[in-house]
Amino acid sequence: MTRDILLQTEPIVLKTEVPPEAGAVVRFEGRVRADEQGRPIRSLVYEAYQPMAERQIEKILNELGAQHPCLAVRLRHRIGEVRVGEIAVVIEAISTHRAEAFALASAFMDRLKQDVPIWKMKAVEA
Amino acid sequence: MTRDILLQTEPIVLKTEVPPEAGAVVRFEGRVRADEQGRPIRSLVYEAYQPMAERQIEKILNELGAQHPCLAVRLRHRIGEVRVGEIAVVIEAISTHRAEAFALASAFMDRLKQDVPIWKMKAVEA
Repeated sequence: MTRDILLQTEPIVLKTEVPPEAGAVVRFEGRVRADEQGRPIRSLVYEAYQPMAERQIEKILNELGAQHPCLAVRLRHRIGEVRVGEIAVVIEAISTHRAEAFALASAFMDRLKQDVPIWKMKAVEA
Repeated sequence: MTRDILLQTEPIVLKTEVPPEAGAVVRFEGRVRADEQGRPIRSLVYEAYQPMAERQIEKILNELGAQHPCLAVRLRHRIGEVRVGEIAVVIEAISTHRAEAFALASAFMDRLKQDVPIWKMKAVEA
């Protein structure tokens, strides 16, 4: 399973690139919504403990890749200020058949929230 | 839940459009792989019994939208010849939080294969 992982401060632009043996692409985008806990916001500020975050992401992908073998996984996560409507995180899982790509992308997002030191440091009010 | 459904002979170009209250976009693409049952192919030819296919898709989205409420669903399915590497089907589910979008997109694909009269009529060998 090839991997392409990047934590970045710049806006996310991820063009899908698909090998010829792929039959399924599952892409999840998490976007900053216009309100946070009921209050209108302008942006969220994400922080990460980056070396550990990258190690944890690798570890999670090792585990999930063994359970749900995919051809390729690509991940982008913003760090710093992310404005309403912008993409905070994208995961793209590419597989021969769809079940593995759905399972890996969905399980990865659960694990990312639980086990990876990337967090919403603050919301900037609108 | 807004819907935008199209069965089409032209290549699929689906640009994601996301309302400001959306926090999650799940997109599944099904692509034609370079082999079908072990034999190399050039393309697959899809056929549909179109009036019934559209009614079934609406019915399935009614059911799944009640179980997994999303803000919007968009679907494109190719009919006719689709070459290797091209997208045969895309579903995009947009929701406030990610669980609903993952559940709807994944369940929809299962139901599409089971209950909608769109089928691979033949494979064109390479």
